[in-house]
Amino acid sequence: MALKQVSSNKCFEGFQKVFEHDSTELKCKMKFGIYLPPKAETGKCPVLYWLSGLTCTEQNFITKAGFHQAAAEHGLIVVAPDTSPRGCNIEGEDESWDFGTGAGFYVDATEDPWKTNYRMYSYIKDELPKLINANFPTDPERMSIFGHSMGGHGALILALKNPGKYKSVSAFAPICNPIQCQWGKKAFGGYLGSDTSKWEGYDHSYFFIATFINDHIKHHAKYLNA
Amino acid sequence: MALKQVSSNKCFEGFQKVFEHDSTELKCKMKFGIYLPPKAETGKCPVLYWLSGLTCTEQNFITKAGFHQAAAEHGLIVVAPDTSPRGCNIEGEDESWDFGTGAGFYVDATEDPWKTNYRMYSYIKDELPKLINANFPTDPERMSIFGHSMGGHGALILALKNPGKYKSVSAFAPICNPIQCQWGKKAFGGYLGSDTSKWEGYDHSYFFIATFINDHIKHHAKYLNA
Repeated sequence: MALKQVSSNKCFEGFQKVFEHDSTELKCKMKFGIYLPPKAETGKCPVLYWLSGLTCTEQNFITKAGFHQAAAEHGLIVVAPDTSPRGCNIEGEDESWDFGTGAGFYVDATEDPWKTNYRMYSYIKDELPKLINANFPTDPERMSIFGHSMGGHGALILALKNPGKYKSVSAFAPICNPIQCQWGKKAFGGYLGSDTSKWEGYDHSYFFIATFINDHIKHHAKYLNA
Repeated sequence: MALKQVSSNKCFEGFQKVFEHDSTELKCKMKFGIYLPPKAETGKCPVLYWLSGLTCTEQNFITKAGFHQAAAEHGLIVVAPDTSPRGCNIEGEDESWDFGTGAGFYVDATEDPWKTNYRMYSYIKDELPKLINANFPTDPERMSIFGHSMGGHGALILALKNPGKYKSVSAFAPICNPIQCQWGKKAFGGYLGSDTSKWEGYDHSYFFIATFINDHIKHHAKYLNA
């Protein structure tokens, strides 16, 4: 499980890094972004996983969301994986923006020719946390997950299917809105789906995410640092 | 001076917009980003101009700097122009990353074939503020300027050559470092060049800008809202 560092940029006294590795689950090279807060220099930190939406790579969140200040303040490691296997040369993989490359949907495919590589659910659930915990100063007992759109759906599904695995979960405009509204109020202490009036007029972009990212990180920090 | 709206995204209760217009100074179509804070809905606001670095368009700052929250809180309109004329079809314009397209250097060219279009100094000094003041709820008496790298140099030059025009000026890693250190302490109340130790380890990227953007905006708000 060798990691190759692709980039490293100091940010809010910590470091935003990108690494590449050979994924056994996806059978291709994968990149992920990881923010190491200043606290990670001297101690173990909880990990907050971010799942991005359709067409994204690990870059969108780390460059546009403006999450670093809050992560630094709360001492959270934030991991932002890519959204699908890459370069698998499956026929039809690159034909549509919402299917194949950039559109892994955080599920394990069950049919050929997809089922060999398109195993994003298992990648996010098992391989990636194992890799992160083996290589960075994490507390493996404290992890949470959130995401946007396709990734919001992914975060909810991962949390709901694995009770106790994540300390907290949240989603920005997850695909399949009924999940957000129906389950949010009950399962997540009223955080999701509550007070939706404050979101009026916002669209599906990272300008929307940036506006509310601090609220979400504060929410997760409450449980991760409890 | 007709403006064409290219995009509009709600962000921190205000709106990040991009407009296109025909520039008389540059003799081509130009885009600029403008953030209208919530306060602009009910009253006139000061304007803070941002000048970007080499290779940038108006997009880099508005998507990566994370300035919206501070601008919203301080009630500042923030304008981010492009960094050079576009599509002028001058021979050699697109051959180098640091000359021609994306590299206007905020100066007025004096030689053919550049002097017809490459007039970024006059564009930023006169045409753009006139356009902004005619179309948005600004207070024309209150404007400031800052920027990064090539744009940091541009901001310093524009402020130093036009005493009284800007209420305040600041720069991130301006090209020609001696300017920053030598003039900063005297001309700008110790803001620039002071306490450079806090910047150690940071690079030239937007991760660096994002880390200190709140400090800069607070600095300008102090003078713009005085």
